[in-house]
Amino acid sequence: MTDSQFIDAALRNWNINLDRATKFFEGLSEEGLQAEVAPGRNRLIYLWGHLAAVNDALIPLLDFGRRLHPELDDVFLKNADRAVENPFSVEDVRHIWRKTNEVLQAGFAELSPAEWLQRHTSVSEEDFQKEPHRNRYNVLLGRTGHIAYHLGQVMLTREAD
Amino acid sequence: MTDSQFIDAALRNWNINLDRATKFFEGLSEEGLQAEVAPGRNRLIYLWGHLAAVNDALIPLLDFGRRLHPELDDVFLKNADRAVENPFSVEDVRHIWRKTNEVLQAGFAELSPAEWLQRHTSVSEEDFQKEPHRNRYNVLLGRTGHIAYHLGQVMLTREAD
Repeated sequence: MTDSQFIDAALRNWNINLDRATKFFEGLSEEGLQAEVAPGRNRLIYLWGHLAAVNDALIPLLDFGRRLHPELDDVFLKNADRAVENPFSVEDVRHIWRKTNEVLQAGFAELSPAEWLQRHTSVSEEDFQKEPHRNRYNVLLGRTGHIAYHLGQVMLTREAD
Repeated sequence: MTDSQFIDAALRNWNINLDRATKFFEGLSEEGLQAEVAPGRNRLIYLWGHLAAVNDALIPLLDFGRRLHPELDDVFLKNADRAVENPFSVEDVRHIWRKTNEVLQAGFAELSPAEWLQRHTSVSEEDFQKEPHRNRYNVLLGRTGHIAYHLGQVMLTREAD
């Protein structure tokens, strides 16, 4: 039964970072979201869309179903901030962020410990034999770190960090 | 035996972030380490010392022994960058960073799964009964995220991020 404690710890860590991001981004006005994390670097709205796109892509990666919004990738993953026109309003991003996270939470809740240790969908059965760390659990830890990485950047726009 | 897979995943994640930080900081000149992550914000040398102090404080928190360098805290934890005089040279910080991380690696390697789930030393036995998530494993995940958080900031000083 110790398995569940390791899983709880990882989900707790995911939720802490996700909640911190939600609180930060949802607390800003449309104008506030135009701020850059440093001169000439990504704007906050871009990083919010970027994190939403990465979360959305987790849905098929963890085998929870099809992506909800693959159309995010062109604006928020494949291209740099301001490189292509952004058709998404702040309201769109907020809606996608919430919905995507709901789907992930529901998926997480259904996984058994053994399923957490199964391969994610972008590694083949053959490669997984050689690299058994390429499992769902490892993806969760890595993506939690990715949120923390960008949180560190967005927090620079706060007066007191 | 699945316990060890959860532990391997967390240690892998720790090492990825730690190695990235080491590579970044050790690749810079003394002058390069004076750069600020954003105008008026922390300098790189401060963040390196800050992460070294947090790692050093993990030694007693995880019950691996006494701290090696509690004198870091005044400069890198309790005060903001440039608020107090910094008596540590870049060479000092590099040496402390390496040594502290060696002690942590040795400690990690000796823990059994059950020991990973034991309380850390800043929570009492009584509180731990109510909050069993306050264990060593949870500390490792949290501190890994803390490194990622500051990595996101220091990477802003790179031309292409």
